[in-house]
Amino acid sequence: MIRIGIYGYGNLGRGVELAIKQNEDMKLVAVFTRRDPKNVKLVDPSVAVYHADDALKMTNEIDVMILCGGSATDLPKQTPFLAKYFNVVDSFDTHAKIPEHFANVDSASKEGGKVGLISVGWDPGMFSLNRLMANCILVDGNDYTFWGKGVSQGHSDAIRRIEGVKNAKQYTVPVEKALQAVRNGENPTLTTREKHTRECFVVAEDGADLNRIENEIKTMPNYFADYDTTVNFISEEEFIKNHAGIPHGGSVIRSGKTGENHENKHVIEYKITLDSNPEFTASVIVAYARAAYRLNCEGAVGCKTVFDIAPAYLSPKSGEELRKNLL
Amino acid sequence: MIRIGIYGYGNLGRGVELAIKQNEDMKLVAVFTRRDPKNVKLVDPSVAVYHADDALKMTNEIDVMILCGGSATDLPKQTPFLAKYFNVVDSFDTHAKIPEHFANVDSASKEGGKVGLISVGWDPGMFSLNRLMANCILVDGNDYTFWGKGVSQGHSDAIRRIEGVKNAKQYTVPVEKALQAVRNGENPTLTTREKHTRECFVVAEDGADLNRIENEIKTMPNYFADYDTTVNFISEEEFIKNHAGIPHGGSVIRSGKTGENHENKHVIEYKITLDSNPEFTASVIVAYARAAYRLNCEGAVGCKTVFDIAPAYLSPKSGEELRKNLL
Repeated sequence: MIRIGIYGYGNLGRGVELAIKQNEDMKLVAVFTRRDPKNVKLVDPSVAVYHADDALKMTNEIDVMILCGGSATDLPKQTPFLAKYFNVVDSFDTHAKIPEHFANVDSASKEGGKVGLISVGWDPGMFSLNRLMANCILVDGNDYTFWGKGVSQGHSDAIRRIEGVKNAKQYTVPVEKALQAVRNGENPTLTTREKHTRECFVVAEDGADLNRIENEIKTMPNYFADYDTTVNFISEEEFIKNHAGIPHGGSVIRSGKTGENHENKHVIEYKITLDSNPEFTASVIVAYARAAYRLNCEGAVGCKTVFDIAPAYLSPKSGEELRKNLL
Repeated sequence: MIRIGIYGYGNLGRGVELAIKQNEDMKLVAVFTRRDPKNVKLVDPSVAVYHADDALKMTNEIDVMILCGGSATDLPKQTPFLAKYFNVVDSFDTHAKIPEHFANVDSASKEGGKVGLISVGWDPGMFSLNRLMANCILVDGNDYTFWGKGVSQGHSDAIRRIEGVKNAKQYTVPVEKALQAVRNGENPTLTTREKHTRECFVVAEDGADLNRIENEIKTMPNYFADYDTTVNFISEEEFIKNHAGIPHGGSVIRSGKTGENHENKHVIEYKITLDSNPEFTASVIVAYARAAYRLNCEGAVGCKTVFDIAPAYLSPKSGEELRKNLL
């Protein structure tokens, strides 16, 4: 049994708890939180909840610590700190800061003789992996990533900060026409506006100026101004009924050419459709936690990403079984 | 520069020659053939062509030998034989015999201190990889593989063996309704007939009995009897004009559930659409040839499959570059 700890218990941490239950070779040992442990309710109440400060007391009881904090402020500190004492997996997703995060985790993991696996999930994660592999196969080609239809937490938060907004959810939606052109191998050049639209569902406070809210959303720089945005005002009941979930998904597509005269077109698409973004992300993370543990058992140390993990390490099955049944 | 040899020069060998041209860190050193080398015309006439018997004279000039023979009789002998002297990559695709082939290549590669990479291409190959990864992520789920629309060489050959048939091409076509049900996460149970249809384009000899030919095709056991098959008789001109290519493709789909009450559905699809089956297969093989070479340089020996290769080994770029630009 691989003994897992969860560090941070929000949507992702809960998803990790559920994913561990689906994997028979794993056991959740403890959850660590910065809140009062008494106030954290797990799916399985028999699992211990400790304060985050007590994590280092458990270095002998935990094979892999899965970090479920945010990329903005939590993970840049937490992952390097814990990587010295545990094999760790995180889902750090601030693309521009990955090289710096990698370096910090690498030195900590090496110091502790552990494996630190960063930026695991679907983007970065499975999407990155598919970008890399498709690039290596179709050398002469173009990459496209479409996100959605799905909830952008950041954009939903931005709407909620507007005066008079009680609740809001924003869906990022790929433009079907653009998606079809890419799938046909037409290699279009697409602007931001041509790739995605943004659909907002807003619950306004009583008496709020709806025109002002709609205008503030549509003109918000970085978040909405560069997109075709639609704003729908709905009741609280409708919001709870139809917009409670956290679905997401998207496609990574590469189209390329081969042949003596580049006459043959090929398209590779990796597409995911997810009812629950955090539960899917957690499922990816848990598979990679197995890999981190097994690699460390074999003597590997230091920071790694999905690029560095041979796929067989993700599976509890033997190489023989995999070759016989899945190759 | 990674120095490549090609052993066997048919459609796949030609595809490998073209793929090497797209990769700046590789060089094609020589092609080996069992035919008279004078009769083998390469895309690049400046590359040397030798008789297959002379391959072992070139052990110092070739870093990776890519085997492009058939799985029925060529590769079971050729790959273990050459694996003792070269790093090798093959596309062995007789699923049932992979364990035996693996064992033979493994002992030869280990004896020679080389890496032998088998069953590389798209199925087995990229499809296997996606089956494995999707299984590890969505533990509670179902697998589906759809092939096509594309040319089945084996089925086309079977039609050509019928008396009165001058030429023929058979397309395997996924049933759109089944594909949609799978993509919707409905987890249907599908019979052979419900998953694929078979479309045949046949050029008959003058005066041949078309009804007999059509009946022989549609009732052929193993090949056609279990499918809804359509037979189209066409002229030689139309055959040459519309059916000269070797397109193929398909989808590997896994749908699964997560959540406290299995309430969240997820679908992962890996889909390829190929104008040229052999050129795409060759492009995959060439990327894995890079991995075989690099692994052997690091001291790895023995037989491996796509399951054993960390994706970063497929790319000529450094880990730093990959993390910065593709993660």
